[in-house]
Amino acid sequence: MSKGITLAEAYERSAYPIRGNGKWAVRQLIEAFDGYNGDTASDIYGKGDIIENFQRKIADCLGMESAVFFPSGTMAQQIALRIWCDEAGLKRVAYHPLCHLEIHEEDGLKELHGIDPILLGEKERLIRLEDIRSLRDDIACLLLELPQREIGGQLPEFEELEAISAYCRARGIKLHLDGARLFEITPYYGKTEAEICALFDSVYVSFYKGIGGIAGAILAGPAAFTETSKVWKRRHGGDLISLYPYIVSADYYFDRRIGKMAEYYEGAKELAGLYNGCPGVKTIPEQPVSNMFHVHFELGKDLLEPILIGVYEETGIGLFPALRGQDEREGTCYCEINVGDLYDNAPKERIHEAFRLLREKLEPVARIGKRG
Amino acid sequence: MSKGITLAEAYERSAYPIRGNGKWAVRQLIEAFDGYNGDTASDIYGKGDIIENFQRKIADCLGMESAVFFPSGTMAQQIALRIWCDEAGLKRVAYHPLCHLEIHEEDGLKELHGIDPILLGEKERLIRLEDIRSLRDDIACLLLELPQREIGGQLPEFEELEAISAYCRARGIKLHLDGARLFEITPYYGKTEAEICALFDSVYVSFYKGIGGIAGAILAGPAAFTETSKVWKRRHGGDLISLYPYIVSADYYFDRRIGKMAEYYEGAKELAGLYNGCPGVKTIPEQPVSNMFHVHFELGKDLLEPILIGVYEETGIGLFPALRGQDEREGTCYCEINVGDLYDNAPKERIHEAFRLLREKLEPVARIGKRG
Repeated sequence: MSKGITLAEAYERSAYPIRGNGKWAVRQLIEAFDGYNGDTASDIYGKGDIIENFQRKIADCLGMESAVFFPSGTMAQQIALRIWCDEAGLKRVAYHPLCHLEIHEEDGLKELHGIDPILLGEKERLIRLEDIRSLRDDIACLLLELPQREIGGQLPEFEELEAISAYCRARGIKLHLDGARLFEITPYYGKTEAEICALFDSVYVSFYKGIGGIAGAILAGPAAFTETSKVWKRRHGGDLISLYPYIVSADYYFDRRIGKMAEYYEGAKELAGLYNGCPGVKTIPEQPVSNMFHVHFELGKDLLEPILIGVYEETGIGLFPALRGQDEREGTCYCEINVGDLYDNAPKERIHEAFRLLREKLEPVARIGKRG
Repeated sequence: MSKGITLAEAYERSAYPIRGNGKWAVRQLIEAFDGYNGDTASDIYGKGDIIENFQRKIADCLGMESAVFFPSGTMAQQIALRIWCDEAGLKRVAYHPLCHLEIHEEDGLKELHGIDPILLGEKERLIRLEDIRSLRDDIACLLLELPQREIGGQLPEFEELEAISAYCRARGIKLHLDGARLFEITPYYGKTEAEICALFDSVYVSFYKGIGGIAGAILAGPAAFTETSKVWKRRHGGDLISLYPYIVSADYYFDRRIGKMAEYYEGAKELAGLYNGCPGVKTIPEQPVSNMFHVHFELGKDLLEPILIGVYEETGIGLFPALRGQDEREGTCYCEINVGDLYDNAPKERIHEAFRLLREKLEPVARIGKRG
């Protein structure tokens, strides 16, 4: 084992890194524009075929009336909630305690929009209909994230979703979908994007998760809603003179990967099974429902990282580049797995060899139990 | 003259369009990335060489301690004012009545930040030191736009700027520079960017005006200020996972055009002289102080457009693609001119021929005076 090498470096150097769709590098852009007609007119402040055609294409895919391209989901979702709050005359919404808006956006929703979120349910599990029923305060909008990323990408059963949708509609609560990974859940539900979105009033989707674009998001909903979202997009500073670098690449990778979501989902189930076969290791969910899951280790980063580096170096398989801190408990850690193009590119026997070795190396430490 | 053709179409079809740096087309991106190393790592949420090196480069050019790349100037400037307001504990700023924040941003500053702007001076002229002296209310920050775009790109004398800066510093008023066209004014002042910026506490510059990039902006100032701006950038939804499509192109065109600002400025003076030689036509400023100016016509769009289309078609010179409405008075209109690469690409004798023809065609209508 090389001295002083980090897990990320070992991952980078491995012959077969298997997470996601590949390295975050300028190649993604160059590939998407290779052979593209340079005479094509830029979008100018939200106008022009290059943006309007893509907005129409994704609106149709989602079965929504209209769609607007945004530079980021952070911007799109704050704006969605703001519009529903303004319409209701009520600056209160509800979402999961680990919602992106609550933990990754520096409180933009509160600081810029003065919107007061109710954290619904508990950190470790999905929002349930009973949580919504038990709300004491009126809310303008409920945001549901499908799948719930921060708990490994879990999903409610579709019937529960339908019940939540019906409940909200009956009470005039707008239902917004954080669909950052919407495309990735269609195989599990056995539903089209449009069938899922039909339960919601507005939807955000991302183009750099399973789709593997560079950045960018779509916000979709009724035409009056998306028109208003354009005003807020300008206020936020998101109405760039040209967004085509993100649009062209989103469109390119959308066409290339939208048909591969079932393959990624199957890969995730297979890979989760391999992790669950290791001592002191379990995945959440145990059986993935999309291309993603979390892997929890009953071992601290300090002990686990050298083991992983050894596995990567001996087998050439790079499992993942980073572990997330002590998963609130000493002597544990976890990582997030996304299955994309790379998983099927790696020889299966090498992957099995890597897990054989990982099991072998974890066996003695698992017997000792966690450190300290 | 072709029937039913618009001014924009005639401009597009002309052999020598002479405004700016060329068509807004995907070619701009393709050219900037041609031969670029695809293995270069993407910036990830504001980190990485590709963004950090460019931020350092522009901070050094501006002589500021630190700089942050933003997707748009709209976002950068609202955030700059917000930070200075928060520091002063006072949500009031002052700027020109035709400031970008006042007329082009759907009131983002008010709606998102609750900041109350005082419109200083008058629409038709620059802000003067006496305007600032006569302020009755305290302000956290004064924004000056150099050059003042909506009045043709006018500039105060440098001595007045120095006096304004000294006045603001003595009173604890932060001075922010809207430098959307800062690079373009260095030849007139005979000063470097850093010498101009030294009078200000914070500066925004744009990369798709004279520089001719695709989109994007830099906000520069003290390190504590730019660090805080990153938090607000995330809140606004501007902390994209990758901004390199704009950064690489900004850097490419910066290197290509930063040395040409004097050439553009000389071209603008020459071109303004040609316009001022036409009856019923005058430029503001009469003598440009950057690469831009406005041309005002004592003639309505309906009468002027067919004349211009005729000139473009007969001479092959496209002067500009669009006229702006009735410049508040019936029977007048105006346009904005920017001189970039295209002006020197057109044969001078053809340009002179176009103006000879324009003078000839305007002569009879100018004698009749304005319509109605």
